[in-house]
Amino acid sequence: MAEDQGSYAYLTFVTSNPNKVTEVRQILRDFSIAFEHLNLKYPEIQSSSLRKIASVSVRYLHKKLKRPLFIEDSGLFIDALGGFPGPYSSYAQKTIGNSGILKLMSSIRHRTARFESVIAYIGTGCDVCLFSGIAEGSISLEARGVRWGFDPIFIPHGSRQTFSEMGPEGKRKVSHRRIAVEKFGIWARERTDRAVNSFR
Amino acid sequence: MAEDQGSYAYLTFVTSNPNKVTEVRQILRDFSIAFEHLNLKYPEIQSSSLRKIASVSVRYLHKKLKRPLFIEDSGLFIDALGGFPGPYSSYAQKTIGNSGILKLMSSIRHRTARFESVIAYIGTGCDVCLFSGIAEGSISLEARGVRWGFDPIFIPHGSRQTFSEMGPEGKRKVSHRRIAVEKFGIWARERTDRAVNSFR
Repeated sequence: MAEDQGSYAYLTFVTSNPNKVTEVRQILRDFSIAFEHLNLKYPEIQSSSLRKIASVSVRYLHKKLKRPLFIEDSGLFIDALGGFPGPYSSYAQKTIGNSGILKLMSSIRHRTARFESVIAYIGTGCDVCLFSGIAEGSISLEARGVRWGFDPIFIPHGSRQTFSEMGPEGKRKVSHRRIAVEKFGIWARERTDRAVNSFR
Repeated sequence: MAEDQGSYAYLTFVTSNPNKVTEVRQILRDFSIAFEHLNLKYPEIQSSSLRKIASVSVRYLHKKLKRPLFIEDSGLFIDALGGFPGPYSSYAQKTIGNSGILKLMSSIRHRTARFESVIAYIGTGCDVCLFSGIAEGSISLEARGVRWGFDPIFIPHGSRQTFSEMGPEGKRKVSHRRIAVEKFGIWARERTDRAVNSFR
């Protein structure tokens, strides 16, 4: 394998969601890690575990594309609904939407929820490495702020605003995705540094 | 492949749901088709199409088990909810349950829904054959009858009772699964007869 271990120039982020690309690129820039974006849909299995879903998908992609790559999957887990919508968040968003979630939560006082993000990386020396980030919080009583996914109905712990009301910058500071991507960035940076040092 | 085309003695039904085995065995008996039951969980992809999910799973199983086999997948599709819960019916059942569906449907007058069943078969001469059955109906205003899945909240077209209230026998006459299994039975019977005749 002629893979350059000292650089992530060949690193590929596979996603069909351009919003994710912008967010992840901004975070990884702090770690001097660049990647190529591949706009591709890929199969995901049904499971209540994001980690399992991401692991299977990233293996599938690596078999096809044969290069170091990573994907990101995330979901909203609401305690009073047994974790629903969880891994099926985008399907729930497309069908019942935020109004559906608020309807399900009507008259429920116990409103805790968490957003979870999982980065699955696969490449030389790493047969699926997982990095996860969690943002604890609660479901608001009504949707507030400009819509992106479940952001208008999720209030992160310690805030009075929903993710939407906080704006992209405010959200990015506390988001589940930021935590997962940062963990990945730290790990990848260390690996790169080690490879560069061993080359000197 | 030393596969006996004239008999379905080697036919395998893969499912981890014993209720399905009983129901399918009873229907296929009318077509003199026997099968072996293999209690096994298998991966299912995320998709809004039952046909696609079943096709991928049955291919996966055939690759592993290398024998003629079939699986069954079904879901409840509610029009006012954009098809939700659809292919994720069992996850929705486990998390928000019937009370969740009724809550989502509260104050919604347009209550039409359909149950869909898909049988996916794979074996010699058939690289995934699909047989589907649909039961049109509507979502009841409250759960009625003894519980199995969404049966207490689904009223088939032309009936005043929910699937649960109709009892197993009553339900079996009009169920989506019966239609799909019968289509499969007719097809398999014809194929067997043809093979037996060519042998004489």
